[in-house]
Amino acid sequence: MSAKVGFIGLGIMGRPMAGHLARAGHDVVVFTRTRDKASALLAEGVEWRDSPAALAADRDVVFLCVTDTPDVENVLFGADGVAGSIRAGSVVVDHSTIAPAGARAFAERLAGQGVAMLDAPITGGEIGAQNATLTIMVGGDAAAFQRVEPLLKTMGRTVRHVGPSGAGQALKACNQILCAVNVMGVCEAILLARQSGIDPATAIETLGGGAGGSWAWTQLGRKIVDGDLNPAFMIRLMQKDLRIVQSAAQENGVPLPGTALAQQLFRAVESRDAGGDLGTQAMIRAYEGMMG
Amino acid sequence: MSAKVGFIGLGIMGRPMAGHLARAGHDVVVFTRTRDKASALLAEGVEWRDSPAALAADRDVVFLCVTDTPDVENVLFGADGVAGSIRAGSVVVDHSTIAPAGARAFAERLAGQGVAMLDAPITGGEIGAQNATLTIMVGGDAAAFQRVEPLLKTMGRTVRHVGPSGAGQALKACNQILCAVNVMGVCEAILLARQSGIDPATAIETLGGGAGGSWAWTQLGRKIVDGDLNPAFMIRLMQKDLRIVQSAAQENGVPLPGTALAQQLFRAVESRDAGGDLGTQAMIRAYEGMMG
Repeated sequence: MSAKVGFIGLGIMGRPMAGHLARAGHDVVVFTRTRDKASALLAEGVEWRDSPAALAADRDVVFLCVTDTPDVENVLFGADGVAGSIRAGSVVVDHSTIAPAGARAFAERLAGQGVAMLDAPITGGEIGAQNATLTIMVGGDAAAFQRVEPLLKTMGRTVRHVGPSGAGQALKACNQILCAVNVMGVCEAILLARQSGIDPATAIETLGGGAGGSWAWTQLGRKIVDGDLNPAFMIRLMQKDLRIVQSAAQENGVPLPGTALAQQLFRAVESRDAGGDLGTQAMIRAYEGMMG
Repeated sequence: MSAKVGFIGLGIMGRPMAGHLARAGHDVVVFTRTRDKASALLAEGVEWRDSPAALAADRDVVFLCVTDTPDVENVLFGADGVAGSIRAGSVVVDHSTIAPAGARAFAERLAGQGVAMLDAPITGGEIGAQNATLTIMVGGDAAAFQRVEPLLKTMGRTVRHVGPSGAGQALKACNQILCAVNVMGVCEAILLARQSGIDPATAIETLGGGAGGSWAWTQLGRKIVDGDLNPAFMIRLMQKDLRIVQSAAQENGVPLPGTALAQQLFRAVESRDAGGDLGTQAMIRAYEGMMG
């Protein structure tokens, strides 16, 4: 069944995601800060709207995929925001990675006007967005989730309702802990292999299938060995996510020493040569820097 | 072709490994500190020897699987040690996890009497030893490796020559870095999930296939969720290995802050209630202790 949907935020993730919705036969309208980013979608017949309010006015479901908590707040509740025009009974689905507390607060405000908001952060990277193989972890009202689940399945392979409002964001925070800590292990293991005279490519292959194996080891380890520090996921976005992680951990009284150490190492990379725009595997630079 | 082999050290790893050699048709004799541990093998027709020297005297290949660097030194060069009786042209294969520098020194001493020594540490756990699916990473003379490779393949699935003497131990050190650091991420992610009200089993399943996924997340994470802290690999053995890791890193000028943090957390668990005998996933106790 075709739905009237809107998509706000056409970055490297949002653009292919909106494309999947359109190609699945839904009526898709879009808004993003830089109209140029919409051109390929507009050429496919997707329609442009001039603001979040203009977009949301006649939509059943409004998807967001922006950067941080203040961006979501602004798109929803700022001047020309979604909340000013959206109809009661509609659903807002937020794919951005923001603080769980923010997700809960925004959902509560929208609930006041009869609109369900789901937090639905994603993982799987640009490739996952392009191939519709994302993992989408959803928090919020279960009935609203059931309504939008078929739409989410056009964009993701693993689509799961994990709890009430904020739970999707909390689980995404857990994911980012794993990503940040695992890459630290990858860097330390590759450096010791390299300095011990072992071919790091052999190291990656030999250890990949064992108890030390991880996505980070196989994927990011190989990039480090190849000297490829281009971003699949940028350090500055990881740092934004890790600030969210620490605020969620603070709220819940959870000490995260390993994550904190990874943050400091990422900071060392950020502190020079536009290091924040490199991929998370560029953490290796922090270690190389220590070794002079 | 049947070989005359000896196996020294019949712990939870060595015992099934020696069994695979025997079942592959080789002439196997064994020695271990506690003779009782050999009883099942002896019942299968394997023969007992009263000391390393008695074992090594007429063997083509002598396998060791003991605990630490001093244990290997003692078995090789102590009173009634292997070195006192082994014939020139034989090969010693050491499956213990010891310091790379120790492996190199022992190999050099044996080379002086015409005996090749390969360092061949293993990963894959008790299950891997039982099912002959171990990863065996081998350092040392390439020709000696080729001679024993068919024997190693009766015990392991991934059998790789990774460099000169000590390289196998260095790569095992890299593996232990990954294991130690990854379990830290697992603990932090599970705690945040738990305290955020997310079902940790759902968290493990949802994130397992993504960029945060790892062997540690799927295997050890599940054990933590189930409250199962029984050892697949004991914390005190991991700590022994991490001391080796740090000595290898010191030798090579590699800073390992993530690994160092994991060591401290394991130490906190070791410090009470026989925590060192628990599995590495019991690191969760250090975190729970911090939370009071």
